[in-house]
Amino acid sequence: MDKKLTAAILIIGNEILSGRTQDTNLNWIAKKLSDQGIRLVEARVVPDVEESIIFAVNELRKKVTYLFTTGGIGPTHDDITSVTIAKAFEVQIELNPTARNILLEYYKSESELTPARLRMAHIPVGASLIDNPVSGAPGFQIGNVYVMAGVPRIMQAMLDGILPGLGSDRPYLSNTVSCNLPESKIAEALENIQKKFKTVEIGSYPHFSVGSIGLSLVLRSTEEGSLHEATQEVVNMVRSFGVEPTSMTVCTK
Amino acid sequence: MDKKLTAAILIIGNEILSGRTQDTNLNWIAKKLSDQGIRLVEARVVPDVEESIIFAVNELRKKVTYLFTTGGIGPTHDDITSVTIAKAFEVQIELNPTARNILLEYYKSESELTPARLRMAHIPVGASLIDNPVSGAPGFQIGNVYVMAGVPRIMQAMLDGILPGLGSDRPYLSNTVSCNLPESKIAEALENIQKKFKTVEIGSYPHFSVGSIGLSLVLRSTEEGSLHEATQEVVNMVRSFGVEPTSMTVCTK
Repeated sequence: MDKKLTAAILIIGNEILSGRTQDTNLNWIAKKLSDQGIRLVEARVVPDVEESIIFAVNELRKKVTYLFTTGGIGPTHDDITSVTIAKAFEVQIELNPTARNILLEYYKSESELTPARLRMAHIPVGASLIDNPVSGAPGFQIGNVYVMAGVPRIMQAMLDGILPGLGSDRPYLSNTVSCNLPESKIAEALENIQKKFKTVEIGSYPHFSVGSIGLSLVLRSTEEGSLHEATQEVVNMVRSFGVEPTSMTVCTK
Repeated sequence: MDKKLTAAILIIGNEILSGRTQDTNLNWIAKKLSDQGIRLVEARVVPDVEESIIFAVNELRKKVTYLFTTGGIGPTHDDITSVTIAKAFEVQIELNPTARNILLEYYKSESELTPARLRMAHIPVGASLIDNPVSGAPGFQIGNVYVMAGVPRIMQAMLDGILPGLGSDRPYLSNTVSCNLPESKIAEALENIQKKFKTVEIGSYPHFSVGSIGLSLVLRSTEEGSLHEATQEVVNMVRSFGVEPTSMTVCTK
């Protein structure tokens, strides 16, 4: 627990920034990391522009234990992630024989290995491959950077292969207490509970729907005992305003 | 058109990085900016941690015409955005009399203006207020930074008030040609079209579902004539592989 495992995500793709596509990869990866006790400390979205990718990769990979990228490793002209990551690491990119064999197996014949498809077998020197059980073309790992596809199904399959090798801190446990009180009413009492429990993070998330106010109070900690005590105080605090919690979830990871 | 309007988004909130909440604000803002011809060049997600917010705000606001932040301006202890933005701009934070009056109107009586609620009327010196027609407590603008709520309904209402004042570049027009070809098959031909039309951005977005492959080719440009020509070439290219486009959308903004 001395040295916490941390992570960042870099989402590469114009389609997210233009609003054409709603990203779901961030949330997927965030949950998986949280389950494993790896703390996601930042996420960024950048366009398919070389200098933007290089800047973000080099800034983020120094901040965290692991950097995950999604997007830009397909066969088309706008897929510039691999060559750009090579530049960020100041290494060459080369036709990787193993990656080429994987593509040959996937596309069945040499004649199908068009220049466009062979782009997907060009990997930075020194990188190791990340298995793609969905569509052949591998991702890769270089240094602490894991380069994955942007298509959610493929990214998810790649991530499943990566996660067991990353190690795990003691995972966060999380409890949620929901109630129908306005956030501003409980703010002071909640802050007092937060001050008392230094090892528990308490977040307050209001939600509005027509005619009603809802509030979820989320408590997170790696220490089960403190989490339990703080949660009990939150429940008592809610009751002190004359209402019962509307729901409660007690998670064990 | 000489000086393009650009924007970045900073999403502030542990709940996004823990995976608890799927962010939808980025996509919403991205679409609105795109409609208005303002180019979104980066988005970041950072936790409710002072140094992370200050670093991101100061890095991003120098890069773009407009920086939008969401989250962390409510009444609870974890809402640290306002005080942190003040620090990023090296100004004091103060009880803003107009903001206080707005809250008084919303909560109806002085006795309801608890210290927690009054937190939401503390605004960096020199900032101007952003109207919140949903729940009273205002956002604010300081320099080129627009500080909005994280709750989507409130953020959306604030943004509607902000956008008309931001100006507009010639908006991007966008056409999409969809087909059932694998991306790797058309990559080379598509790259040739991209090379021919420098003012049109062509993106290639594969999607997989059980038993079928889909591909959307998205063309974007501020020049209608070039966009039309490039789109026609993409359609012809798809036909050259013996299939018809499965769908086509021609948007006018």
